[in-house]
Amino acid sequence: MNTQQLLEEVSFNSDGLIPAIAQDLSSGEILMMAWMNSDALAATIKAGEAIYWSRSRGKLWHKGEESGNTQTVREIRLDCDGDTLLLKVEQSGGIACHTGRRHCFYRKLADAGWETTEPVLRSPGDIYGKNDG
Amino acid sequence: MNTQQLLEEVSFNSDGLIPAIAQDLSSGEILMMAWMNSDALAATIKAGEAIYWSRSRGKLWHKGEESGNTQTVREIRLDCDGDTLLLKVEQSGGIACHTGRRHCFYRKLADAGWETTEPVLRSPGDIYGKNDG
Repeated sequence: MNTQQLLEEVSFNSDGLIPAIAQDLSSGEILMMAWMNSDALAATIKAGEAIYWSRSRGKLWHKGEESGNTQTVREIRLDCDGDTLLLKVEQSGGIACHTGRRHCFYRKLADAGWETTEPVLRSPGDIYGKNDG
Repeated sequence: MNTQQLLEEVSFNSDGLIPAIAQDLSSGEILMMAWMNSDALAATIKAGEAIYWSRSRGKLWHKGEESGNTQTVREIRLDCDGDTLLLKVEQSGGIACHTGRRHCFYRKLADAGWETTEPVLRSPGDIYGKNDG
């Protein structure tokens, strides 16, 4: 089946986007959630690496293009309504979050509020080659 | 911290919604993705069971209210941007999907297209008490 046919079964929202959940293939940990448009999904299928749509920058975002923390996509799944994607990935560098943490869901609801549970493994300044101080 | 203060750190989109990923607490399997508004999140925190916002019905949706397949929420996590939630849940009945499957991501991308990998454990007609034929 060609990519065009595959894309026809995917329901993009009114902005032409679909949420894509990235899950670590081996640990099962949820790494992040980002968005794809049809170009991003087609590019991801072709490259075998996660390529999202950056809503803030308004362009394709090859995850890891700056940080080196790319995601090798081993499996792509679509949900019952066809409006959410699940990617099972191998996370290069073991860091999915731009804050330098293993994953983005590092705040856990506790009695005292949103509690940070994951350490920063590498500083964003180091990851992105900027001196953040 | 009261619920109002907790909600202030959550970024709802322009429709007042935030995606909420439900992950099985023990297996790590992604069960489904749905949406919450602030009322749904507050109700979830209070009830300890997943209560989403049904976009199609335009009202709060206590997951399992018809099927009995409720989700007991053991952990709520917020991502780095504050615009996605992750719920770690115990899935009552072992069926999260309205199609009667264990989870909603039962279609896997293969050479031949989107391939169904998960069996229907209980027919929707049986679950929802309707005779679907």
